[in-house]
Amino acid sequence: MTQAHHPIEIKPAKGKLGILMVGLGAVATTFVAGVEGIRKGVRKPIGSLTQNGHIRLGKRTDHRNPLVKELIPLADLNDFVYGAWDIFPDNGYEAACKAGVLPRDLLDKVKDDLSVLEPMKAVFDQTYCSRLQGTHVKTKTNKMELAEALIQEIAEFKKKNNCDRLTMIWCASTEAYNTLSPSHQNVKSFEEGLKNNDPRISPSMIYAYAALKSKIGFANGAPNLSVDCPAMNELAKEMGVPISGKDFKTGQTLMKTIVAPGLAARYLKLTGWYSTNILGNRDGEVLDAPENFKTKETSKLSVLDSILKPDLYPDLYKDLYHKVRINYYPPRGDNKEGWDNIDIVGWMGMPMQLKIDFLCRDSILAAPLVLDLVLFMDLAHRAGMRGIQEWLSFYYKAPMTKEGLEPVHNLFHQEMKLLNTLRYMMGEDQITHLGIEYYQE
Amino acid sequence: MTQAHHPIEIKPAKGKLGILMVGLGAVATTFVAGVEGIRKGVRKPIGSLTQNGHIRLGKRTDHRNPLVKELIPLADLNDFVYGAWDIFPDNGYEAACKAGVLPRDLLDKVKDDLSVLEPMKAVFDQTYCSRLQGTHVKTKTNKMELAEALIQEIAEFKKKNNCDRLTMIWCASTEAYNTLSPSHQNVKSFEEGLKNNDPRISPSMIYAYAALKSKIGFANGAPNLSVDCPAMNELAKEMGVPISGKDFKTGQTLMKTIVAPGLAARYLKLTGWYSTNILGNRDGEVLDAPENFKTKETSKLSVLDSILKPDLYPDLYKDLYHKVRINYYPPRGDNKEGWDNIDIVGWMGMPMQLKIDFLCRDSILAAPLVLDLVLFMDLAHRAGMRGIQEWLSFYYKAPMTKEGLEPVHNLFHQEMKLLNTLRYMMGEDQITHLGIEYYQE
Amino acid sequence: MTQAHHPIEIKPAKGKLGILMVGLGAVATTFVAGVEGIRKGVRKPIGSLTQNGHIRLGKRTDHRNPLVKELIPLADLNDFVYGAWDIFPDNGYEAACKAGVLPRDLLDKVKDDLSVLEPMKAVFDQTYCSRLQGTHVKTKTNKMELAEALIQEIAEFKKKNNCDRLTMIWCASTEAYNTLSPSHQNVKSFEEGLKNNDPRISPSMIYAYAALKSKIGFANGAPNLSVDCPAMNELAKEMGVPISGKDFKTGQTLMKTIVAPGLAARYLKLTGWYSTNILGNRDGEVLDAPENFKTKETSKLSVLDSILKPDLYPDLYKDLYHKVRINYYPPRGDNKEGWDNIDIVGWMGMPMQLKIDFLCRDSILAAPLVLDLVLFMDLAHRAGMRGIQEWLSFYYKAPMTKEGLEPVHNLFHQEMKLLNTLRYMMGEDQITHLGIEYYQE
Amino acid sequence: MTQAHHPIEIKPAKGKLGILMVGLGAVATTFVAGVEGIRKGVRKPIGSLTQNGHIRLGKRTDHRNPLVKELIPLADLNDFVYGAWDIFPDNGYEAACKAGVLPRDLLDKVKDDLSVLEPMKAVFDQTYCSRLQGTHVKTKTNKMELAEALIQEIAEFKKKNNCDRLTMIWCASTEAYNTLSPSHQNVKSFEEGLKNNDPRISPSMIYAYAALKSKIGFANGAPNLSVDCPAMNELAKEMGVPISGKDFKTGQTLMKTIVAPGLAARYLKLTGWYSTNILGNRDGEVLDAPENFKTKETSKLSVLDSILKPDLYPDLYKDLYHKVRINYYPPRGDNKEGWDNIDIVGWMGMPMQLKIDFLCRDSILAAPLVLDLVLFMDLAHRAGMRGIQEWLSFYYKAPMTKEGLEPVHNLFHQEMKLLNTLRYMMGEDQITHLGIEYYQE
Repeated sequence: MTQAHHPIEIKPAKGKLGILMVGLGAVATTFVAGVEGIRKGVRKPIGSLTQNGHIRLGKRTDHRNPLVKELIPLADLNDFVYGAWDIFPDNGYEAACKAGVLPRDLLDKVKDDLSVLEPMKAVFDQTYCSRLQGTHVKTKTNKMELAEALIQEIAEFKKKNNCDRLTMIWCASTEAYNTLSPSHQNVKSFEEGLKNNDPRISPSMIYAYAALKSKIGFANGAPNLSVDCPAMNELAKEMGVPISGKDFKTGQTLMKTIVAPGLAARYLKLTGWYSTNILGNRDGEVLDAPENFKTKETSKLSVLDSILKPDLYPDLYKDLYHKVRINYYPPRGDNKEGWDNIDIVGWMGMPMQLKIDFLCRDSILAAPLVLDLVLFMDLAHRAGMRGIQEWLSFYYKAPMTKEGLEPVHNLFHQEMKLLNTLRYMMGEDQITHLGIEYYQE
Repeated sequence: MTQAHHPIEIKPAKGKLGILMVGLGAVATTFVAGVEGIRKGVRKPIGSLTQNGHIRLGKRTDHRNPLVKELIPLADLNDFVYGAWDIFPDNGYEAACKAGVLPRDLLDKVKDDLSVLEPMKAVFDQTYCSRLQGTHVKTKTNKMELAEALIQEIAEFKKKNNCDRLTMIWCASTEAYNTLSPSHQNVKSFEEGLKNNDPRISPSMIYAYAALKSKIGFANGAPNLSVDCPAMNELAKEMGVPISGKDFKTGQTLMKTIVAPGLAARYLKLTGWYSTNILGNRDGEVLDAPENFKTKETSKLSVLDSILKPDLYPDLYKDLYHKVRINYYPPRGDNKEGWDNIDIVGWMGMPMQLKIDFLCRDSILAAPLVLDLVLFMDLAHRAGMRGIQEWLSFYYKAPMTKEGLEPVHNLFHQEMKLLNTLRYMMGEDQITHLGIEYYQE
Repeated sequence: MTQAHHPIEIKPAKGKLGILMVGLGAVATTFVAGVEGIRKGVRKPIGSLTQNGHIRLGKRTDHRNPLVKELIPLADLNDFVYGAWDIFPDNGYEAACKAGVLPRDLLDKVKDDLSVLEPMKAVFDQTYCSRLQGTHVKTKTNKMELAEALIQEIAEFKKKNNCDRLTMIWCASTEAYNTLSPSHQNVKSFEEGLKNNDPRISPSMIYAYAALKSKIGFANGAPNLSVDCPAMNELAKEMGVPISGKDFKTGQTLMKTIVAPGLAARYLKLTGWYSTNILGNRDGEVLDAPENFKTKETSKLSVLDSILKPDLYPDLYKDLYHKVRINYYPPRGDNKEGWDNIDIVGWMGMPMQLKIDFLCRDSILAAPLVLDLVLFMDLAHRAGMRGIQEWLSFYYKAPMTKEGLEPVHNLFHQEMKLLNTLRYMMGEDQITHLGIEYYQE
Repeated sequence: MTQAHHPIEIKPAKGKLGILMVGLGAVATTFVAGVEGIRKGVRKPIGSLTQNGHIRLGKRTDHRNPLVKELIPLADLNDFVYGAWDIFPDNGYEAACKAGVLPRDLLDKVKDDLSVLEPMKAVFDQTYCSRLQGTHVKTKTNKMELAEALIQEIAEFKKKNNCDRLTMIWCASTEAYNTLSPSHQNVKSFEEGLKNNDPRISPSMIYAYAALKSKIGFANGAPNLSVDCPAMNELAKEMGVPISGKDFKTGQTLMKTIVAPGLAARYLKLTGWYSTNILGNRDGEVLDAPENFKTKETSKLSVLDSILKPDLYPDLYKDLYHKVRINYYPPRGDNKEGWDNIDIVGWMGMPMQLKIDFLCRDSILAAPLVLDLVLFMDLAHRAGMRGIQEWLSFYYKAPMTKEGLEPVHNLFHQEMKLLNTLRYMMGEDQITHLGIEYYQE
């Protein structure tokens, strides 16, 4: 525990908060169904730090553990308003039924809330998603016009719903693999690219541009670049809005960033880590295309190096063979299964093995992250925190950081970073777990 | 990162360090074989923080990551001298062969180092260990005389081996279940109990008493009480020596304190956690007796409550059904298998499951903990840190704390506590993972 | 394929078949719900050989594969009438809801069929089932009077429901461990025992006696002795009715009798087989009592010896360490989990391991066995096959055999025995899988 | 049990039996090391039916269970002589060390026996094995010349080693995917193809041709076509020699043909079966090439259809989604891991899951199959059984059958076929498991 700072000034969270979701599929509808279920008292907000979390303040013996949402001025769930774009015209209820994440009798309890959610036509480009055939899409002559159409829709949405603030979050599928090109270098080149239909500008970037230009924060739940480029960072700072990403950390990667820090804390050597996934939802279908899987694979592979630090620990981690597989397996639907085999070497070179089988549910794990991110992005905006929000790394498979700063993947360092940031914002002492003072006489 | 303190004064680690092990079985011989193997360059010191660990100092961008053993003045492995007591007369090599932890060809590389290690006669009491028949035991008329015999052996060992410092560590089997009695309340009542042969004073307490009276620290690798009572705490402070315990954290409980903090960080509800172990070594045989299993069970069950905090989170963790089983299964020998099934409930009440199968090796995981504890207990002694060393919780299933302080079981909080304690001792800044300064312009 | 016999004479299956179930809990209600669901076309009869099975007749190249139910004159599901006894007064629908095996919306489709099923008062004896407190039980001065009360109820049921034939099946919990006593030696001593209230005569034996005296076959789905004693065998032959048992083969033991024959066919050595179960239904609660678990354990342990034949294969199977555990684990309800670890030794003594995790459902696996047994017991009765029906071993964990004959536990030998018995009854050739004739020119 | 036939006439097994192995890698060296270890009494012949198996003759109550090798006139292990071809020049000991299947101290006990085994230069064609670079290969102008070179080597081997009989077995890697072409239609076209260097004639076919022309049986341990074509069948019959194949049934497919028949016996519906393998030996490396994996995949995928019969059982098995993956994973070496997830639907449509994790060893499972096949192929030859030996299906993943006959994959039907064939050869009764006679009075 160390000395406190002055609290940061945060504007109050009054009025409606408009939540704009790109993609009205399994994740988005499960999020909306859940929030409305919570408001109706049908279910508890399991999985959400903002709704459940207590935060320790001061010394262990002080017993100060307020709820996060009591300590921090977060938006109220009753102030939520939803908007969405999708490449299919199904309303929220129809989309949720097709997604098959939640049982029908549960969905029916929030049927009205979901049914009113009619998606706007999406910005779509088949080269970024070969497995899906969008039928509910905007057609314009260039990408700048698409962006302008989005900007106009955002403004109309805000006015129509009488919103005080808005935030945008990407809940759609993974786009095909892409790397930085000259268009992504700064705002000017990016706008040129939009006008010239640069093929390297993907749909998610057009949404992000529209959001930032509208002074709205953008959170990216998929591994595609979107706001992770110099142009968007520049624009976010210019507009004074927060950005964060990439790729909701759920399922197997969540487990990996829990287990790997534990094995590393014990300095156990790893020779192999084999991860395979079976899933049968639309996400699985999209990732069955090699170019989309590559985007995901890059996101999934990076975590171990950052946690294990093979450069510092060549004897322990330099020869680790890490392999990640995703298999489209329709019998499972949204109910993913992630299986890991970890080959460990211990004291005196003796081999051991660890096997983890996670029978999980993709969207069930993602939905509460959407809720927390929406609330924290709105908080950051009101607190004047603009550009990359590294303190939200906790929620992402491939956290964005300032240039020159290595991302932190260890879930427990991420959790510490998040909680200490909240303490910092409120002018409370940092927690260090030192605790030597209890033993000093 | 927060403001630094002045470094603590630490006496240099010069001269021989005598390591006195209670129990010369699988753990102790694997520890000695390993250390000697490392000294000979036969194997790397996998699993040991003191031998492998780097410690980050300062900001992430400072890139200061010295080795722990370069930063902190630890004893040199070349200065180790070993002593042991055991209820069987086998020397270290014979005992290691019977334990069957390490392959014979590996043992043969350190045969000489193990063979010279002849155990002294043990203090033994069958009521605390019904499954073993000790043949190499001390016989005295009362427990005080047993303690005095140990004290004399310690003095002789120190002199004979020309040791600068000594430390004692319990590497023997788990004793039968025991609770605090009047004898354990203070030094005076304890000494009365020794003289009157109080049946509630177990062998491990007699060793601990002898160690502390000889001004030697005592680390407790099993779940029996030993130094975990007011009398021993009082004596440790009086004598100016460190004590720590209880129960080396290896195998299934290690995994539990890795995984549970991860699930709790995500506020996932848990309805059931079923843990079963199969192991076939002497430890498994001893734990096949219900009274000894009870001691272990108590140690193993406590971890989840402390991590999950059902009082703070009744909706999430109050109804958790936690069951731990240990099965003696001879086909496995020292190669334990720990299987966990975890029943999880997520967003909207949807059930998920996590299965973990850890094909591990008991003594292989414990041996490097012995090494680290021996070095850190010696460090604490030289740094004038007396009484309970809570900062060593990282190594224990049931960490000892000052009265009134709840133990910390979360492996990552324990790691933080350990590393920040090292930083504190050296006058370095505490790490908080806040990192807001990188983003403040 | 070998020479055919004359078909056996079988009386036609005309008129109502009354099915008398002892125990109206998870298994019985799932059976009734399923049969009625099948009749209504709500679900397919998955898991039932009599409803799905085709049977190969003649040579492979003949392509004669009629449905079993077309070849063999079985009772029609539309002719079923149900009766039951239970220690609780809940009707079939209430009991099914409490059991929680089937989702409510599915149960509601057969609500009427279940609701009319009102249990008769049970014969109950707490010494055989310490964990349950029966509230709906018969009270008489001795066991013979209890038997006579049952006999009278059976006669009334038959008349009231206008049944052509009846059959009785034990679907209740496992009774406490019991062995043969003098009362069980012959019909005369048994009747003496009934009159004298011999404590060694358990409730299931009273039901069995009542059934046989009423000229009704008795199938035993639990591991208690019931009809597995000389007295009942004598009575069954005298009355001309079939008996079969013991203990429905589902879950882990089913898997064991599938996998063990495969490993044995390959002459792989086994050193250890560790089986643990977690289940949370009423069965799990009853088996939490050591005296009831002992009955189950005996049933579960016997299968490996019979399949592996350690006397013939001492090098391979004499040192096998076999351990079976059942843990009551409420979070799982009826959804059992059976986990097996098998330690294998192969060529040149090299160790291998096999791990099986069966996420199954107790009553879902048992219900179709009830259906098949009811139909085959009725068939046997009409075919004049009296006494022990060893050909039904396929359905049981601990098959009953004629004295002096070792039971067959290998599932595939049991299947062969069942199918070749059906072929034999119809005068068809036996299948031997020789097939040499296809290659003889 | 059915009526016996006259025994078949079998020539005695006197004199040396020459065993010609194509490929002197992990499987072949493990086989030779094992046989020599057995002869020296170092190890028991675990995994071999011919060396361990007892066979039941007559009624269960007859208690006639002779050893297979006592009943049937098999060659003696002491009469074995080994020859091999390989694409690398390492002798048997060097190759076994590189394969890393057996620990060095075990190999050293048969070092002399392995060291003398110097491979002859191989017939190699890189288009059939892109991942390996053969350095020890024959160079000829056409494939007929290669065949003639092999024929000459065979004759020389027989003479030099004074062999009474020879048999050839393919123990090399899987060849790239291939289908039947005009060259494979009959002996004449095949010989034309050899002369014209038809690219569709793979190395394994050249070996097979050479074997058959030399009047030697050929057993095929890999999934490539080799003898599985009309031309080879014609030639085998013409020369009076047995042929058998394809692909040693070990590991995951072995488990699949054990478990699937069990689930099918219970008429449980299957919706998905996902199988993944990780292995790191030379076989894994070769199968990392898509064209070689395709050959293996075809072999592995076929088994379920044959066992489950989706045409007879469309409701149960038509929608089964079956996926097989093999991943080259170097940390594992020869120690394969096969993981299966099986999605099951039971009574009333309720879902269940079965997970199997087989920590096995590729060559350890294959070596005893080589031993049995060598002995049974030699037996068949002496018994005048020429052409396809379907009764050896028990040993193969993709059993060869006469045209028009569906292969049998159910391990238990295969075992029955094998054992009843042995009974048939000796004039003993067929076993049918009917057993009705025990109950007929």
